[in-house]
Amino acid sequence: MSITAENIEEEVARTVEDAKELQELVTTHISKTSIEEQSLRQRALSLNDSIKRLRSLLDSLLSRKLLDPKVADKLDEDLQRAKCIMADGDAASLLPGNVQGRFLRMFLGPINVRASQKDVQLKVKEEYNSYKDRTALLFLFFPSVLLILRSWIWAGCMPAFPVQLYQAWLLFLYTGLALRENILRVNGSDIRPWWIYHHYCAMIMALVSLTWEIKGQPNCALKQRGVQLFLQWAMMQGVAMLLQNRYQRQRLYTRIALGKAKRMDVVWGESAGVDGQLWLLCPLLFILQVFEAYVGLLLLRTAFVGVVSEWQVIFCGGLLVLMAVGNFANTVQTLMVKSRFKAKMRRSKSKQELD
Amino acid sequence: MSITAENIEEEVARTVEDAKELQELVTTHISKTSIEEQSLRQRALSLNDSIKRLRSLLDSLLSRKLLDPKVADKLDEDLQRAKCIMADGDAASLLPGNVQGRFLRMFLGPINVRASQKDVQLKVKEEYNSYKDRTALLFLFFPSVLLILRSWIWAGCMPAFPVQLYQAWLLFLYTGLALRENILRVNGSDIRPWWIYHHYCAMIMALVSLTWEIKGQPNCALKQRGVQLFLQWAMMQGVAMLLQNRYQRQRLYTRIALGKAKRMDVVWGESAGVDGQLWLLCPLLFILQVFEAYVGLLLLRTAFVGVVSEWQVIFCGGLLVLMAVGNFANTVQTLMVKSRFKAKMRRSKSKQELD
Repeated sequence: MSITAENIEEEVARTVEDAKELQELVTTHISKTSIEEQSLRQRALSLNDSIKRLRSLLDSLLSRKLLDPKVADKLDEDLQRAKCIMADGDAASLLPGNVQGRFLRMFLGPINVRASQKDVQLKVKEEYNSYKDRTALLFLFFPSVLLILRSWIWAGCMPAFPVQLYQAWLLFLYTGLALRENILRVNGSDIRPWWIYHHYCAMIMALVSLTWEIKGQPNCALKQRGVQLFLQWAMMQGVAMLLQNRYQRQRLYTRIALGKAKRMDVVWGESAGVDGQLWLLCPLLFILQVFEAYVGLLLLRTAFVGVVSEWQVIFCGGLLVLMAVGNFANTVQTLMVKSRFKAKMRRSKSKQELD
Repeated sequence: MSITAENIEEEVARTVEDAKELQELVTTHISKTSIEEQSLRQRALSLNDSIKRLRSLLDSLLSRKLLDPKVADKLDEDLQRAKCIMADGDAASLLPGNVQGRFLRMFLGPINVRASQKDVQLKVKEEYNSYKDRTALLFLFFPSVLLILRSWIWAGCMPAFPVQLYQAWLLFLYTGLALRENILRVNGSDIRPWWIYHHYCAMIMALVSLTWEIKGQPNCALKQRGVQLFLQWAMMQGVAMLLQNRYQRQRLYTRIALGKAKRMDVVWGESAGVDGQLWLLCPLLFILQVFEAYVGLLLLRTAFVGVVSEWQVIFCGGLLVLMAVGNFANTVQTLMVKSRFKAKMRRSKSKQELD
């Protein structure tokens, strides 16, 4: 039906009515949905509570020898399964996630960054990995270019501008990483807090290094020794990031694939088929951490021997040593958790075969 | 019923079953909700289309003199009302908002920052205003302290560290503001794009000024003339921000109050009861913009006369002039839109009285 001057009044009136009706429908829909969600959330919370209660009961029965260890093991596995269903399924979006920390509130305000569906959460994680992939290449590229130009064109003495550009990029990069990792945490990722703190430290270091005079003193090459070492370390870091990303992405793919097949078995994907890469990654990570500490100590030495006495040098040196120590401790802990988990897996497998 | 070694197996089995059932319920709930939402969204989109179509039809009928101007005016007002219902009610969350721009993607990745309920959106805006309030006080406080210490203790020559601390704070502040404003835009705020660009410029300026040598040259006081002017401008900016916040917050409260009373009339709150403050705010804003341009030109002069020849000085000078011009143009445009709107309001009011 075409609209003419005759019936336009009618049409407009109908449109206004439609708008009012739709507005009411949407309001009803929102309130109904939130009531349903509230009741589902209640159930999820009480279920989580009973899982916790049953687990501690199991432990106490076992310690008082009121339960056969074999039965206890089987029950423990069942509870683990129930927990996985809750943690990896859609129900996870109902459970209180990690609270949105100060860092996100500082930058973003009170906006909610929690995705309500598990698929979206996995997509966010996948995008985070591909973001890290892209930046790892730049992480390799920028310092290489600076170092090549340094020896070929700048004759051992880098001009301030390109180095500062690189430092500004680092600041932007680490801010982005820290924000994304906080968002992942809110969405239920089990990323270790240290890796986020590590990026806070890196942010501060990039900021401080921006205020650091790069040229000026008589002996430029000596003064820039620290910068040079830092760039070399950054190149190694780039390689390590690329390897790490490959490893983590493969783990995620395994998890998604398993999740689609059978959600509750998701956790069994933890260490599937990526052991080979870990043997390459681990030594590289440790070498990197030693080199990081070395650069830090060297910066501290240049500061105390008196070549460069700016506070920035002492600060960055100390921070690098701190980051190296923290990285080392956390890598070791991660490896220990992994190996403990694998031992448990082996045990339960061989038991199944015995049965 | 208390759980013992006898019935724990039963309890665990029931818990696993509960978890499976809940998982299914949640999945059903999510898919049902999203189907309903999809159909509501379809209706909202087609309604928005008909409003647009009717408006252009109205214009064409009016220009071809097929419609009485009085009737057309009334119909236009009705359509405006329908549009307000859609834009200010819960239905707004279904309509595609402003797309999430590059800036947010760069820092946060693909996470959705759109609040699904209008109340939450208003809360976000209110929090943004109170954030601006808090920072306006610091905006006033930091430069005042620096300037007071400069003349009382530092004898006209500021040390680098406190100034750099202030610049780092500025960088953090502007990044936070730019992120929040982008989030507000995604949530349907009609903030002018320029004010966001303005904060990008301020971010870049804070970053550049961090790399800027503050001390060192023989004539420290002359070199710091630019910094001193910048700090004075920042103090004025703090006062203007406080006033602006008061004004904008009052507008928001009016809108919320009207919205609660009768959602569709929300837009009539645009200029209710805050005219008095505008007369104080406007001259101050213009003086501020002139002073901003003056500081910029002065920085450019010091660079070209040759006291300080670093690129940072030229860059910051140019940026300040650019920002002053942009601010001026946008303030004038905002005032013009406001006065046009008020004139229209007056016309329709007097017409109503005639009727």
